Amino acid sequence: MISKIIFILFLLTLLSHSITNASVVDFCVADLSSAETPSGFPCKSSVTINDFIFSNFNSGNTSNNPLRSAFTSASVHQFPAVNGLGISASRLDLDVGGIVPIHSHRGASEIVMMVQGRITVGFISSDNSVFVKTLSKGEIMVIPQGLLHFQFNAGRNKATSFLAFSSSNPGAQLVDLALFGNNLSSAIVEKTTLLDPAQVKKLKAIFGGSG
Amino acid sequence: MISKIIFILFLLTLLSHSITNASVVDFCVADLSSAETPSGFPCKSSVTINDFIFSNFNSGNTSNNPLRSAFTSASVHQFPAVNGLGISASRLDLDVGGIVPIHSHRGASEIVMMVQGRITVGFISSDNSVFVKTLSKGEIMVIPQGLLHFQFNAGRNKATSFLAFSSSNPGAQLVDLALFGNNLSSAIVEKTTLLDPAQVKKLKAIFGGSG
Amino acid sequence: MISKIIFILFLLTLLSHSITNASVVDFCVADLSSAETPSGFPCKSSVTINDFIFSNFNSGNTSNNPLRSAFTSASVHQFPAVNGLGISASRLDLDVGGIVPIHSHRGASEIVMMVQGRITVGFISSDNSVFVKTLSKGEIMVIPQGLLHFQFNAGRNKATSFLAFSSSNPGAQLVDLALFGNNLSSAIVEKTTLLDPAQVKKLKAIFGGSG
Amino acid sequence: MISKIIFILFLLTLLSHSITNASVVDFCVADLSSAETPSGFPCKSSVTINDFIFSNFNSGNTSNNPLRSAFTSASVHQFPAVNGLGISASRLDLDVGGIVPIHSHRGASEIVMMVQGRITVGFISSDNSVFVKTLSKGEIMVIPQGLLHFQFNAGRNKATSFLAFSSSNPGAQLVDLALFGNNLSSAIVEKTTLLDPAQVKKLKAIFGGSG
Amino acid sequence: MISKIIFILFLLTLLSHSITNASVVDFCVADLSSAETPSGFPCKSSVTINDFIFSNFNSGNTSNNPLRSAFTSASVHQFPAVNGLGISASRLDLDVGGIVPIHSHRGASEIVMMVQGRITVGFISSDNSVFVKTLSKGEIMVIPQGLLHFQFNAGRNKATSFLAFSSSNPGAQLVDLALFGNNLSSAIVEKTTLLDPAQVKKLKAIFGGSG
Amino acid sequence: MISKIIFILFLLTLLSHSITNASVVDFCVADLSSAETPSGFPCKSSVTINDFIFSNFNSGNTSNNPLRSAFTSASVHQFPAVNGLGISASRLDLDVGGIVPIHSHRGASEIVMMVQGRITVGFISSDNSVFVKTLSKGEIMVIPQGLLHFQFNAGRNKATSFLAFSSSNPGAQLVDLALFGNNLSSAIVEKTTLLDPAQVKKLKAIFGGSG
Repeated sequence: MISKIIFILFLLTLLSHSITNASVVDFCVADLSSAETPSGFPCKSSVTINDFIFSNFNSGNTSNNPLRSAFTSASVHQFPAVNGLGISASRLDLDVGGIVPIHSHRGASEIVMMVQGRITVGFISSDNSVFVKTLSKGEIMVIPQGLLHFQFNAGRNKATSFLAFSSSNPGAQLVDLALFGNNLSSAIVEKTTLLDPAQVKKLKAIFGGSG
Repeated sequence: MISKIIFILFLLTLLSHSITNASVVDFCVADLSSAETPSGFPCKSSVTINDFIFSNFNSGNTSNNPLRSAFTSASVHQFPAVNGLGISASRLDLDVGGIVPIHSHRGASEIVMMVQGRITVGFISSDNSVFVKTLSKGEIMVIPQGLLHFQFNAGRNKATSFLAFSSSNPGAQLVDLALFGNNLSSAIVEKTTLLDPAQVKKLKAIFGGSG
Repeated sequence: MISKIIFILFLLTLLSHSITNASVVDFCVADLSSAETPSGFPCKSSVTINDFIFSNFNSGNTSNNPLRSAFTSASVHQFPAVNGLGISASRLDLDVGGIVPIHSHRGASEIVMMVQGRITVGFISSDNSVFVKTLSKGEIMVIPQGLLHFQFNAGRNKATSFLAFSSSNPGAQLVDLALFGNNLSSAIVEKTTLLDPAQVKKLKAIFGGSG
Repeated sequence: MISKIIFILFLLTLLSHSITNASVVDFCVADLSSAETPSGFPCKSSVTINDFIFSNFNSGNTSNNPLRSAFTSASVHQFPAVNGLGISASRLDLDVGGIVPIHSHRGASEIVMMVQGRITVGFISSDNSVFVKTLSKGEIMVIPQGLLHFQFNAGRNKATSFLAFSSSNPGAQLVDLALFGNNLSSAIVEKTTLLDPAQVKKLKAIFGGSG
Repeated sequence: MISKIIFILFLLTLLSHSITNASVVDFCVADLSSAETPSGFPCKSSVTINDFIFSNFNSGNTSNNPLRSAFTSASVHQFPAVNGLGISASRLDLDVGGIVPIHSHRGASEIVMMVQGRITVGFISSDNSVFVKTLSKGEIMVIPQGLLHFQFNAGRNKATSFLAFSSSNPGAQLVDLALFGNNLSSAIVEKTTLLDPAQVKKLKAIFGGSG
Repeated sequence: MISKIIFILFLLTLLSHSITNASVVDFCVADLSSAETPSGFPCKSSVTINDFIFSNFNSGNTSNNPLRSAFTSASVHQFPAVNGLGISASRLDLDVGGIVPIHSHRGASEIVMMVQGRITVGFISSDNSVFVKTLSKGEIMVIPQGLLHFQFNAGRNKATSFLAFSSSNPGAQLVDLALFGNNLSSAIVEKTTLLDPAQVKKLKAIFGGSG
């Protein structure tokens, strides 16, 4: 008959790779209050099952904004458990006519998984080729890292997709906001985009840019 | 007035980082007919929008198998566009009573995104802690790389979740199949699991193992 | 004749890549008292030769446990100098009849180097193939990352192997402990393993699991 | 007296890590005629010193194009020796008034090293902050991976900078070309940028876009 | 007419990947006062444009040292903005007769970009092949990671090159300093280099080594 | 009663991540006859248990060479199974008086595990500190990547250590061979090492260098 106590103690010794100091070994739930490092946030010292759950993966409000879209993000800042795991997720809801303007993620490729409705997704590659497709339920599409892309509702009903990213912190840069939503001077915007001054002025007004 | 032809030629030169030899620069859609390398498959020489779409992200048949579950995978072998991008996806459908037995992915963390129904998801960490939760729509859960985990339908209706992985080729190892579904000798299984011979024999019969 | 003082000062300037602030540049011996990050522990501020030595690479006690085996680990928690270097080591001693039950390392491939005796090593791949071999002195075997594997003494004498891992913190998960050594409910174990209730109960008793 | 022949043979044995099969061990000069992989091109089987030299790091013609700029790239396609080494270089020449329009590199951070003249460099971060500075000789600036940025001559003389990238294949995407230089439909451009139709039409004409 | 306020608020929501907690998302300027980690230094909490500029990329003094050379480094310790970005730069000035003795960088490949004059650059590969070339303006050369290499002025005028490295912290080890500039005992130096005792003694005197 | 056939078919479907096309999923045993890539060799299409075993981990001949040492390498060229796994091993045997001259591995950190006898191991860091220790059985030492280091027998009996590396292809560069064992001209060696011409001439003769 095998002695239970001894057995457990022994097997825990076999596990000594990992359990010395009861340290976090298989994951590194972000301690968002500590300074980030290039590989992510330092790890929280104690975790529970709830750390591994993100409970707000619901539709945001698509009717209170002109783009009729809502974006619910579960990146490391909202979902600290993905810290260091190279993955995160988001939910995109597009009302009829809803749009996500052209943007890019500096740090991640993206998979678009259709849940309902029809969404046109497009990206442009470095050699300037255009890849556009209207997706329905049952389809997924991948957008390679760092490329300009967009989404818009292509149907007559609300549309929803789940997005996954190959980074816990993919970043996002919307071209319009980058050009027209800050204090970058109109002269520089005109020079580096070749847009007309009147167009720049108009969009600066819309996006709240100064200068 | 700016000359159109010259302008384009010039800008294409600016892009010369990428377009020399019209090479594949932003992505590397797998040529599955070539030998794999440690970083993935060699790239296809020409691609279209359809390469970036996986069109079979539908429910598999959950009624033709005893586990009442179906798994639809969009990893690199089914969806070559994810090659080298560090991401892939799957769809899991569980009929009432449906189960995914305990298994692990050697090469990826996994995010479970609920689409419908209720699924109990659990994983065990290296320090032998148990993390189990029943998820409903609006919830997602992350399972760190390489740990044993399972899913089963916890409700009275069909349940569906979309899964994303932090690798284009996550791999999967089901403990039962690894132990009882091959020619690993019963003597070795008994010795390295401490299971009773009768139990091993029974499961070998179920899973088709010899030896 | 070259002036010694000037020469040294000059050359140290050439080294300015590394020596500004007298910082730790070539290695990062773990400060285990600080919070871990996804890339490992923060670095100790000062080190000596003794930090790079692990002095307890001896046989553990193989006679005080039912598996007649002993495992001596030199991972980052026991040997902080390997922090960030992507490597660690362990020593495995197996008395006659000694066994290491089926387990996996989520974060590392493993090389088994025979020192004395005969050890049977086996792993199962994701496509469910079995790779088993009895090793003697002069042989080494590699076990790919994350796969289930086991070792047992195959001879009539004590056996010893040195193990190296491709991570400073490989982790280890023993299937029996994960299933039977914690509070994972018997109902879930039965459901996700297809083991008989009596078998689960028996092993829960042996491994000290509750539930 | 040590025997020369034996000595060399012995030391070459010590080097056996690397020289077995006379294989390429320290570098992997790209064989551009073979299919690329996610980690880069397969290696050329034999190399000479000239493979490691790029001899055309001179000013391109800045007077034959409307942007009065010239870009000389030494990425993997032009300089195969950087394959797999995580680095590449470029030379940027800007005539008086010369401009590099807003663009991003999906796969690399960039260091700008001033050689002559004055160049204004700017980038916008994901949180929409603007970082702009006019650089002179003696200054360098770093632009983090994947962010929109631009350069233009800020002085009264020709300006030159050397650029280094943290990838052998950084890629480059010019926003104007991506939006106006291909067959992406005007309707989609308008919808996803909020630009006026007249502006889109004008720029499509300049950049040669159809649709 | 689109409401400006709402629009901006909405778009900032789209950016929620990155801006939650106003965290540093696209870069991680080193806080050199915190303990380093294997992936680099923790990030500074607030940055300005000046963090991204290194303003001392000028010639050092080549006439106050016997090697008639000067090395200006912009690695992470001098230029904290490169932290985590996998790149750094240096400037090398060689007076007539100037030399950089044989050395290696454990953590980076190096690109040499000629600015003025003529410099002979050489490296030796693991299979003991020699790659040497005298470079002039318009030429660049790449030196693979970790290999012994050297530079010396090959012309009759001052020579300058800009260097880029594939790491923010490449490290540097000069063979002469490693052998003769510390307390490594002469007996060990002789034994492990096969140099004559008199030669070792002479160089220990020059480089200030004891023992 | 569960139907065996259906069960197996179903579970294999669950494994579809990995088994489509019967592809190599968990490992990538090198096909040494194919061109290498930056991530390693392409994978062999079929493997057996013998691919994972290296059977020549025995002492080489330490008496037929002046350094009285023997080095048995199990890197990717001798042991193709480690391809892509980030690990390899070697065996070092040192007769009485045996020496491994000063050298470095550009691509790997190294762990030295003592098997018998006493070996003095030393490395020099980038800030020119010396780390030397005489090791006996029961001790292991780690040498960080890319640093100059050496080993020699410190006892009166034969000594053996097992070495593990954090790369499947660590490379090795012996300083003496790099300087004196090829066609690098004596003038350059003298200039870049400050060694006396007579010393260079003597060592060129020993190591077989020309020029």
